Amino acid sequence: MAKDQFVSQIADIDADFPQWYTDVVIKTKLVDYGPVKGIMVIRPYGYAIWENIQRELDTRFKAAGVENAYFPLLIPMSFMTKEAEHVEGFAPEVAVVTHAGGAKLEEPLVVRPTSETIIGHMMGKWVESWRDLPLRQNQWCNVMRWEKTTRPFLRTSEFLWQEGHSVYATGEEAETETLNMLHLYEEFAKNVLCMPVLTGRKTEKEKFAGAVATYGMEAMMHDGKSLQSGTTHYMGQNFAKAFGVQFTGKDGVLQYGYTMSYGVSTRLIGALIMTHGDARGLILPPPVAPVQVVIVPIAAKKEGVLEACNALKEELKKAGLRVKVDDSENSPGWKFNEWEMKGVPVRVELGPRDIENGKMTVFRRDICEKSELGLADAGKELCALLGEISENLYHKAEKRMKERIVDAETLEELLKGVDGGNFVRAGWCGCRACEDKVKEFAQATARVMDKENTAEKCVVCGKPSVHTVFFARAY
Amino acid sequence: MAKDQFVSQIADIDADFPQWYTDVVIKTKLVDYGPVKGIMVIRPYGYAIWENIQRELDTRFKAAGVENAYFPLLIPMSFMTKEAEHVEGFAPEVAVVTHAGGAKLEEPLVVRPTSETIIGHMMGKWVESWRDLPLRQNQWCNVMRWEKTTRPFLRTSEFLWQEGHSVYATGEEAETETLNMLHLYEEFAKNVLCMPVLTGRKTEKEKFAGAVATYGMEAMMHDGKSLQSGTTHYMGQNFAKAFGVQFTGKDGVLQYGYTMSYGVSTRLIGALIMTHGDARGLILPPPVAPVQVVIVPIAAKKEGVLEACNALKEELKKAGLRVKVDDSENSPGWKFNEWEMKGVPVRVELGPRDIENGKMTVFRRDICEKSELGLADAGKELCALLGEISENLYHKAEKRMKERIVDAETLEELLKGVDGGNFVRAGWCGCRACEDKVKEFAQATARVMDKENTAEKCVVCGKPSVHTVFFARAY
Repeated sequence: MAKDQFVSQIADIDADFPQWYTDVVIKTKLVDYGPVKGIMVIRPYGYAIWENIQRELDTRFKAAGVENAYFPLLIPMSFMTKEAEHVEGFAPEVAVVTHAGGAKLEEPLVVRPTSETIIGHMMGKWVESWRDLPLRQNQWCNVMRWEKTTRPFLRTSEFLWQEGHSVYATGEEAETETLNMLHLYEEFAKNVLCMPVLTGRKTEKEKFAGAVATYGMEAMMHDGKSLQSGTTHYMGQNFAKAFGVQFTGKDGVLQYGYTMSYGVSTRLIGALIMTHGDARGLILPPPVAPVQVVIVPIAAKKEGVLEACNALKEELKKAGLRVKVDDSENSPGWKFNEWEMKGVPVRVELGPRDIENGKMTVFRRDICEKSELGLADAGKELCALLGEISENLYHKAEKRMKERIVDAETLEELLKGVDGGNFVRAGWCGCRACEDKVKEFAQATARVMDKENTAEKCVVCGKPSVHTVFFARAY
Repeated sequence: MAKDQFVSQIADIDADFPQWYTDVVIKTKLVDYGPVKGIMVIRPYGYAIWENIQRELDTRFKAAGVENAYFPLLIPMSFMTKEAEHVEGFAPEVAVVTHAGGAKLEEPLVVRPTSETIIGHMMGKWVESWRDLPLRQNQWCNVMRWEKTTRPFLRTSEFLWQEGHSVYATGEEAETETLNMLHLYEEFAKNVLCMPVLTGRKTEKEKFAGAVATYGMEAMMHDGKSLQSGTTHYMGQNFAKAFGVQFTGKDGVLQYGYTMSYGVSTRLIGALIMTHGDARGLILPPPVAPVQVVIVPIAAKKEGVLEACNALKEELKKAGLRVKVDDSENSPGWKFNEWEMKGVPVRVELGPRDIENGKMTVFRRDICEKSELGLADAGKELCALLGEISENLYHKAEKRMKERIVDAETLEELLKGVDGGNFVRAGWCGCRACEDKVKEFAQATARVMDKENTAEKCVVCGKPSVHTVFFARAY
């Protein structure tokens, strides 16, 4: 059967999840490998998801009062060394421009791995008085971190992202913004990616190079591993001091500002694939699906069928939906498989009998079930259905995550937990040695710290717990 | 007087246009200089113009059936050398990554100056059969061309642009698309930037490195010089052969495709500044102005004034306008100057008497005149007014361009023409020596060739004219 043949192109999702992922991203044409190792090409079907993510996030940033700007790709090497922890974290993975315009440069330039340094430098120029604060800017751009082991969307040497950077007059305000942006990401993950996340503060070991505190949002993938899907950083005065971001306060005193930054990347596309996908391939959340409804004509050559499909398409477009009629010469069965693999949330089948009866056959990708809906008021009906699908995707993923958070009181329990594809909640004394021991023993890392410390003892050393931590294996 | 004081910050537009330009782009906070020579930072007020340009163009591309994608920033050096003319044109100005991840790279990587090579390589992978054609993709990205002499927006080592790349089965189709995209740009320049342009084919000397034919659109700036504002290129099979873009035709024969590309950049922001600006500063075309209407409260502390301003703002936003209330503590006079310099198309002044009379005072930036409009139906009134302003800006610029196209039959006439700030239309025999002579004698270049050859003799050698050419000094 054509269908089986088709599905067999994708590795079994439970037997070999990494291969399933690679098969899906390549075969659905989200992405392709570029000519340089570890660098990807984002194809139109993948890029359209990114455009939808951008639009949704950008609207939220603007509503929050953040402005977009664009800062240079190339950063003087000397900038990187101005913040001691920062250079230690990023120097090993930068790409360096040494020659330009036919000559060797006096100072090498780094292709930005992140822009705290150059934006710090510019904000130092722009900020003079308390009246200039807060200064809140964001940029959508490419960044580069040379990686040894790469996978499309998850870890590539070049990726696309947004990075927001703000300066405040007080540390309190900057910390509040760090949490506000974390919550903005969390709301976005829930309502746009239909993806539940755990949010919380990172440990010292896991924080951003140069930050005082890093907060992360972690999502549970199909295999129970965690994917860091967004981070926000409170920098205190570290970067302000390194780059001279000073202002005259209301009190007339010259003082350093407090900075923070936040970012999400094309990694989110990997996150939603591994959160929602199933044996047949992608399941795209309706808010970001490039095609939300695909209309497949049945007996397409019969009079009036294609016309009816196109009329329905126009009606759905008017209702604000992203719609495609697949009028290619492939068989309906082939098309069903193709669009299921590509994760289109709703398929409408429309043939002569449907048209005669004023009905359409509707296939929901999330539950893989067919039903009938009236053609009258199709726009409203399908909008409602897409909303239902979004909710179902979220609740399904939330249920999995809740079921797969287990508690551990010993390292053995912790190992058993992560071996079973769970997030493990456990007490921690706060010391680096115990954190390293978890990594060594269970190949798991501290993803985020829980809001409250509810554990009694450190899962490693047995001393009193200082933080309750979610440990997991991670991408 | 405050106003004079303010205006005096900008150099005289007619006495020193280059300084006027620099003053305007820096003082209105469109842009700032980055820490590396020749690299700019696009500040929020400038970036918002680019976002409006992007949205308008992107909508047009998508309506034309072009899809967005994202290709790698770094291109293997060996790719550049595969097309002989291409490497000759771009090699001298590329920035080169030689080290990454702490080690020297086996092959240096070039920061893309344009992406024909890497996109050619990928399209070679994707195209197999005539069924895959045409393949039409576009990317919005940063590019880098190391420049010696730079000016914000006009010529910087890094800039933002879009580059569209298509493969067709036949040369005819690819050539047609090259002209279609030129016309798309022309329509966009007219209706969005309110900027008249001359379009036509470039001479061999001025064409893109590796193209068979380049078409350009040229706009006349305030000083009569020309600014190349967009180009489209027909590549024939040059890049298809260099990168193996081959497909099996309907006839079963394996053959090379025909490619074309097209691009516009952040240079367009420079173009609109130098087309519309006046002694007071920027005049932004309403379709791309970040703020279309600024509301300045008069006697802002009087009861009800700020409330009325904010109510008007909400009404105008509902009508689809981009609006700002300037409720800062500066004086109305200061605000008038500030927003005039920043080129906001319409200023509304609203004070207690206006509110009482149900009127608003409206200042048009394009003609610097005040009038009164009723507050009732303000949204509709101001939408209409902005449309009128757009038309006026276009017609004013068109009138200037028409008046400043002069004919020349001798080199002396040509020199006199460009000295007077004109575009000079003249006959050309088609030989490179005569084209070089014009450059040497009059510091002018062939901008585009006219659609028809209407001249009798070459302006240089007197032999029969083969092409009628628009010569001008250019940015």
